[in-house]
Amino acid sequence: MSQKVLVIGAVAAGTKAAAKMKRENPRAEIVVVTKDEYISYAGCGLPYYIGGIIEEKKELVVKTPEDFKLLTGIDIFTKQEAIRIDKALKVVDVRNLVTGEVKQYTYDDLVIATGASPFVPPIEGRELKGVYPVRTVNDAQAIRELVDQGAVKKAVVIGGGFIGLEVAENLHHKGIEVSIVELVPHILPPFDEEIALYAQNYMTDQGVHIYTSEKVLSLAGQDGQVTKVITDQREIEADLVIMSVGVRPNNQLAKELGLELGPTGAIKVNEYMETSEANIYAVGDCAENINLITGQPAWYPMGSTANKMGRVAGINMANGEKDSLKGVLGTTIVKLFKLNAGKTGLSERDALKAGFEVETALVPANDRAHYYPGYREIITKLIVDKASHRILGAQVVGEGVVDKPIDIIATAITFGAKVQDLEKLDLAYAPPFSMAMASTILAANVLVNKLTGKVKGIGPIEMRNRVHELQVIDVRDEGSFMIGTIPGAVNIPSGELYMRAGELDKNKETVLVCKIGKNAYLAYLKLKELGFKQVRILEGGMNAYPFERE
Amino acid sequence: MSQKVLVIGAVAAGTKAAAKMKRENPRAEIVVVTKDEYISYAGCGLPYYIGGIIEEKKELVVKTPEDFKLLTGIDIFTKQEAIRIDKALKVVDVRNLVTGEVKQYTYDDLVIATGASPFVPPIEGRELKGVYPVRTVNDAQAIRELVDQGAVKKAVVIGGGFIGLEVAENLHHKGIEVSIVELVPHILPPFDEEIALYAQNYMTDQGVHIYTSEKVLSLAGQDGQVTKVITDQREIEADLVIMSVGVRPNNQLAKELGLELGPTGAIKVNEYMETSEANIYAVGDCAENINLITGQPAWYPMGSTANKMGRVAGINMANGEKDSLKGVLGTTIVKLFKLNAGKTGLSERDALKAGFEVETALVPANDRAHYYPGYREIITKLIVDKASHRILGAQVVGEGVVDKPIDIIATAITFGAKVQDLEKLDLAYAPPFSMAMASTILAANVLVNKLTGKVKGIGPIEMRNRVHELQVIDVRDEGSFMIGTIPGAVNIPSGELYMRAGELDKNKETVLVCKIGKNAYLAYLKLKELGFKQVRILEGGMNAYPFERE
Repeated sequence: MSQKVLVIGAVAAGTKAAAKMKRENPRAEIVVVTKDEYISYAGCGLPYYIGGIIEEKKELVVKTPEDFKLLTGIDIFTKQEAIRIDKALKVVDVRNLVTGEVKQYTYDDLVIATGASPFVPPIEGRELKGVYPVRTVNDAQAIRELVDQGAVKKAVVIGGGFIGLEVAENLHHKGIEVSIVELVPHILPPFDEEIALYAQNYMTDQGVHIYTSEKVLSLAGQDGQVTKVITDQREIEADLVIMSVGVRPNNQLAKELGLELGPTGAIKVNEYMETSEANIYAVGDCAENINLITGQPAWYPMGSTANKMGRVAGINMANGEKDSLKGVLGTTIVKLFKLNAGKTGLSERDALKAGFEVETALVPANDRAHYYPGYREIITKLIVDKASHRILGAQVVGEGVVDKPIDIIATAITFGAKVQDLEKLDLAYAPPFSMAMASTILAANVLVNKLTGKVKGIGPIEMRNRVHELQVIDVRDEGSFMIGTIPGAVNIPSGELYMRAGELDKNKETVLVCKIGKNAYLAYLKLKELGFKQVRILEGGMNAYPFERE
Repeated sequence: MSQKVLVIGAVAAGTKAAAKMKRENPRAEIVVVTKDEYISYAGCGLPYYIGGIIEEKKELVVKTPEDFKLLTGIDIFTKQEAIRIDKALKVVDVRNLVTGEVKQYTYDDLVIATGASPFVPPIEGRELKGVYPVRTVNDAQAIRELVDQGAVKKAVVIGGGFIGLEVAENLHHKGIEVSIVELVPHILPPFDEEIALYAQNYMTDQGVHIYTSEKVLSLAGQDGQVTKVITDQREIEADLVIMSVGVRPNNQLAKELGLELGPTGAIKVNEYMETSEANIYAVGDCAENINLITGQPAWYPMGSTANKMGRVAGINMANGEKDSLKGVLGTTIVKLFKLNAGKTGLSERDALKAGFEVETALVPANDRAHYYPGYREIITKLIVDKASHRILGAQVVGEGVVDKPIDIIATAITFGAKVQDLEKLDLAYAPPFSMAMASTILAANVLVNKLTGKVKGIGPIEMRNRVHELQVIDVRDEGSFMIGTIPGAVNIPSGELYMRAGELDKNKETVLVCKIGKNAYLAYLKLKELGFKQVRILEGGMNAYPFERE
């Protein structure tokens, strides 16, 4: 008798598990059911379809059931919802959502890949026309049709996470006035504040209105069509409202089955993708992850992780051999206009929450040789454990290449690297690709200088909050200073520092400021030599400072 | 008494050592001498200056001595050649190349950073006008002037290494007919043949003439101006000849000092950048490296490594604390037209030479989501130790992003990663940056399949050499097959394989061919099921096969 496998869910993880299982054991009888109309679609591409960057719907749909059958020999049945599972008999009742007919499937192994769904907060007016989540191809298509008809002049995006911001950008490109409302103090909630603020200011500069620390109370409408978003601070006109406050794992079937859930609400699985019940696997966005750094449960619903989970389940169902996924880092990235922002491992905030004592560095650098046309700046934030110097996380933001340093650091963290290991990496260098000292190496150099007490820094957020208590010296040239500086700063160019140190108060808490932090570091050494007691440099320099937007 | 440091050489490593030393110990008296006119210049940028992509000479020269003095307080004296060192007295005689005057400098610590020089083979005619190496700013300027005057119609580049190829590209963009002559069987000698051939065919397709396995015998001229390159195969007209057959470490001073040299001819240093003599350090292109994988001496004259060596020497001269650089991977990258080619660790050839038994995989993939505009293909070659599965090296080539996967793999190799570790990396995914399954992860998946016996592959070079002995089946659709296929291949699309297997000889050595290898893998599983004895897939598929150019 050949092994029978039923897979519930057919986006990334479900199809991967099925296809891999079939390659491992070509005689297995595998069936995939999904309540969706589409399979294997690119959820991460939906914002770009709305904006028309991805022109055709068919580009979003990686494979049709027919394609999949031809390639793998596996049947996928769409618009079929698994409604009841008898784990003793190993039978699943599946309802055809078109005909209402219920059919029974038996299985030896069951894979749950039911994904995640947008969380729609229970606010008044959420049922109005013109209010959409962005999760399925149909959501995106409906929004795009409205936009293409010219029916949308003003849009409000509720939630400043990745999908919300990407949709905001795409709508903005279509000439729509876009506002974003975010409950917490900054957009990009998983990022640390100074990095998130950098991105937030960038988007503001592009003309997107952003309201943070602001709660949506209700949506108002006329004739059943949304017209307004009402927050605790203001009313914002809108003929399109995007609900993107987050997603939740689809754990209903698992709950009914009595599968153990993790603290995140997602299905608990071990490194083999096995649930608490024998012969039942869970993969993709419905399943929980382990954070490789903390060893604690976490939930990162990412297509990249879903594919790995599906592959592991596919191998383990078929073989005595066991493949495993021990954990993930929560690596993530977003493009916003020309800005890129990426993150891997723990944020500073999360690291503190997890009980680490941390040291950080915030270091601007170019992504390529400064003499090679087209180079751009990026800002790297590194977070390490103060005692062991082990890297805990990194965030990189800027118009330059961000995915490369994030992936380098993610790889290093996977192997338990210390920041000193980053300094010595032999990375690919030629002018079109990198500086001779890659941005990651520079950032590691600065952090090592901080760890060894060679320099002390102040972060841009603390600087902004305490700027009026500080003696701030801008060590750039007068021309740069005149164009703009930190509030209250005095200008003493580096070269004049020895001569003019008498103008300063040696005992006052002093911060040195330059463009990126490098000249401030050299000036720091001079002031220390001159006997200044409490000197720090502004980390990230002017380039990372969160100047108020109008 | 303050510590006195003399640094000989002022490009990357010398200036870095000096600047870092000064920051560590601001009271140190540091002097840098160089026989060059320029300091801190971007040697890797010279080809782009020739082509005008880098417009101004001043962009190439990262810093002038005046800039450097202002920034660091350190004097650099140019056009000053160190001619004799008395290591007992710690005195260096330095000759002013303009005035002829000789001055003596005493030191506590000496840093040798004399760099490398182009090797000019002793062929007849090398003294003719129009024959240049490309090593210094003056070389590049002279070439650019000739080009800008329109004095060059035909150029020959002798040597198919990085600089030679980059110069060839830049000359080609200027409308010059360019030929490259390379002594060994393919350009890009450090790369394995299938990757190098891919790049070679690409350059040929751009209109550059490439002659490999061909020896230059002499240069011929008229009125003192070069007119012809004479090889063992042909004569090539030329009014410009670029000599770029390689560089050699400048070890003359070190030899006179009695410093120990390594087997590569470069100055032997330990991980602290100390030479065989106390208080004498060597850094940059004149010094030897250790290959991190083999633990053996190697010589990789790279700006990225030079900077790290300089920093380590700077720290170690100043402190009790010791910084170290334990070794490098020989990571390297080049852009040729729109093609990128990168390499880290050992090539397959070098791994075999070092005594490893290896397994490899050659895997094409897209650099970004295939539905996101602008994605491009790259081909990854992974090389692992067959017994331990430890990654030994990688090469990536294609129009897509190549530096990122190379740096990811370089980082992984640094920590002794196995190929199975690559499969599980949590890399940054969003459509503008990556596929959900990143190219590196896909390549690792394929290699693991090979290691576990799930599939057998044949490389493109073996395939080309043995194609007439093999039963070759192209499993693509008929339309693709008609446009072009491997010589002698028959067309049986995947879907017809079960039906038409009777047309084939089950006992003949069989190779399955598709576009990138994926469908061939699925077909492989079918043929194995049908009892075919000796089946392999063409690794890299049609995309990596070295079709003959006209």
